Amino acid sequence: MIIRNTLTKARFSAEKMGKVDLDAGERLHAGLNCFEPGQEHKAHTHAGQDKLYVVLDGSGEATVGEETAAVSAGDVILAPAGVSHSMRNPGPHRLTVLVVFSPPPGKT
Amino acid sequence: MIIRNTLTKARFSAEKMGKVDLDAGERLHAGLNCFEPGQEHKAHTHAGQDKLYVVLDGSGEATVGEETAAVSAGDVILAPAGVSHSMRNPGPHRLTVLVVFSPPPGKT
Repeated sequence: MIIRNTLTKARFSAEKMGKVDLDAGERLHAGLNCFEPGQEHKAHTHAGQDKLYVVLDGSGEATVGEETAAVSAGDVILAPAGVSHSMRNPGPHRLTVLVVFSPPPGKT
Repeated sequence: MIIRNTLTKARFSAEKMGKVDLDAGERLHAGLNCFEPGQEHKAHTHAGQDKLYVVLDGSGEATVGEETAAVSAGDVILAPAGVSHSMRNPGPHRLTVLVVFSPPPGKT
């Protein structure tokens, strides 16, 4: 599938980070994580599942293991299986991140 | 790993599309495909391996199966295992694409 203008698929929620499914194969799942200013996805770990973030729009603060950095559009973050990671939007703008899982959720 | 300013990792070659490895886990590999104007990655298929493209810079023409579209920065293309795909840079500017494989090359 070819997904043009991916940012137009973003869905934000005042309550919590918005999640959007984009497309998936047997081995790989792509979606969006959409953060209003102040929202975050707290540190967590996926057993048996690698996760890649690509910042599509806005800026945030990413942590993988012991590493924390300010990130913005075009930056790439890889959290291998078993490694703690988090994403935070300190604001003032919205943050949209492409999220790729392997294997897809539910197939670990 | 957190990779800031991913575009600065791009490597172009007058001879053929440049390939750069960025990072990998056990299940997922991330790299760059770097196209000078006129260069292309001709239609090919990966058995047992899903592939995701994210256009980081420039514009090109992507084909997945029967679908062909002009793509530009922020567009996402998923070629599931076994489905023919190609990427072409008609120019006039350079094209840089993030490429995610699952499983990593050599682990299919």
